[in-house]
Amino acid sequence: MAAHSVYSYLLLCNAITLLLVSPCCVGLGLDTVRDFLTREEDTIVFSLIERAKHPLNLPAYEEHAWFGPDGRRHNDSFAELFVRESEQIQAKAGRYQSQEEIPFFHSRVPFTLAPPYNFTTDLYPGAASVNVNDVIWGIYFNELLPLLAKNGDDGNYAVTAASDLACLQALSRRINYGRYVAEVKFRGDQQRYTALIGSKNKDALMKLLTSEAQEDVVKRRVEKKAMVLGQDITLDGPTETGDTNSGQSSFKVAPSVVYKLYDQWVIPLTKNVEVDYLLHRLD
Amino acid sequence: MAAHSVYSYLLLCNAITLLLVSPCCVGLGLDTVRDFLTREEDTIVFSLIERAKHPLNLPAYEEHAWFGPDGRRHNDSFAELFVRESEQIQAKAGRYQSQEEIPFFHSRVPFTLAPPYNFTTDLYPGAASVNVNDVIWGIYFNELLPLLAKNGDDGNYAVTAASDLACLQALSRRINYGRYVAEVKFRGDQQRYTALIGSKNKDALMKLLTSEAQEDVVKRRVEKKAMVLGQDITLDGPTETGDTNSGQSSFKVAPSVVYKLYDQWVIPLTKNVEVDYLLHRLD
Repeated sequence: MAAHSVYSYLLLCNAITLLLVSPCCVGLGLDTVRDFLTREEDTIVFSLIERAKHPLNLPAYEEHAWFGPDGRRHNDSFAELFVRESEQIQAKAGRYQSQEEIPFFHSRVPFTLAPPYNFTTDLYPGAASVNVNDVIWGIYFNELLPLLAKNGDDGNYAVTAASDLACLQALSRRINYGRYVAEVKFRGDQQRYTALIGSKNKDALMKLLTSEAQEDVVKRRVEKKAMVLGQDITLDGPTETGDTNSGQSSFKVAPSVVYKLYDQWVIPLTKNVEVDYLLHRLD
Repeated sequence: MAAHSVYSYLLLCNAITLLLVSPCCVGLGLDTVRDFLTREEDTIVFSLIERAKHPLNLPAYEEHAWFGPDGRRHNDSFAELFVRESEQIQAKAGRYQSQEEIPFFHSRVPFTLAPPYNFTTDLYPGAASVNVNDVIWGIYFNELLPLLAKNGDDGNYAVTAASDLACLQALSRRINYGRYVAEVKFRGDQQRYTALIGSKNKDALMKLLTSEAQEDVVKRRVEKKAMVLGQDITLDGPTETGDTNSGQSSFKVAPSVVYKLYDQWVIPLTKNVEVDYLLHRLD
């Protein structure tokens, strides 16, 4: 057997073993996960910049605050109603067939609108539904939004709420992707994780999942992304590259806000998802 | 009367005159219009980059191609169904109360979801509904999308179609904003425009509206925006500033595609909207 044939044979054996051991994990690896998370940073920064284009538009968020043209008093905020109804369409369109997407409001709408597709499942079924959407919802509206949007009311509540939905979906996808991170880490060191899961040792799991150096890189990178992606780009003027001394006010979203978002919410919440997922990984 | 009082008095008289002459035009000026169009460039480039994240997902665009789980054959493409249903929710939420927004599919859904708001109207009522959404629809799906998305099918049709909707809405808002451009230009030179509108002289109107030097600036600026906003941003590596020699492949959307989009479609279509608007400006 020629050398390249032996190599092909070994590769084939490897592939078969992989398929037999865990039929769901083809394609999921540390590199895939890292690339996904890095690309999602851009999506998150884009969505924040787009939301910051609009004023706060407070009436969109007040509960029990208004009567519809149908004379009915609305008990939920406009933004909540908008997200609910939009998610129903997206559910009908099959968005939540993919495990990467988790709605904020569950509904039992059948996927009547979606062309069929056989999705692969990378996650362990007993842990796949772990998510922190309720926490994300609260943080987005109560903590993040006031840091993004300037005071003001231009009445464009539907456009604003569509922007909110884009931010919420991007944050939800990124943070709940902790399930995939945990799955990959679990597969890479099954023995150690199995012991800690068995003893329900949350603190030790959290410690094992944490890399402060890597987290620091991510936080500084998203801050730089806010600078580069949120600058005013002109043909002649110098382009901000993140090495600038100019004030935060020249950016569409303050880079410090994006740093804070990752430091205080995105990274800690992702790790909470990872730990929760692992605690259900052997159910 | 002190000097500053005289100045205040003159300002007040000016404001009153403005209100009496055209009660709808407060806030609309050449600077506002230019700022709006420049800011929309970022929104368009963001939306294209986000669509390019996903593969082409052809089954989402094929007509007469699939049966729903309800056993019914779908005559429209999935993407069209998705846009129709999403626009209905947005109509209900009052998106189209603002003249800046024009749906691709008209429906008679009442604004039952929207908190009330009194929108100002900057456009001349007889010309306000001028738009080229049908043309934008065709160009987007037939010309632009194949240049953006790589071949492939990951089954995430709902996410993909939501991305398409974001692109379509951004392009529609930008191109149909030609109505505002035309309104401002008309107000700035009423005599000349009135004569050309009276003689329905389309060619002369088009010539009067055209500034090739300004169009060239816009095209080169959006090309640069595609470079800056579509680069891979790392902490250590050099940041692309648009002065780079690196190939188009390192950007998330080819800058040449964004140049072409503006050169062949956005700018010419905007001017068509301007001319059409003006032809109805004295109806």
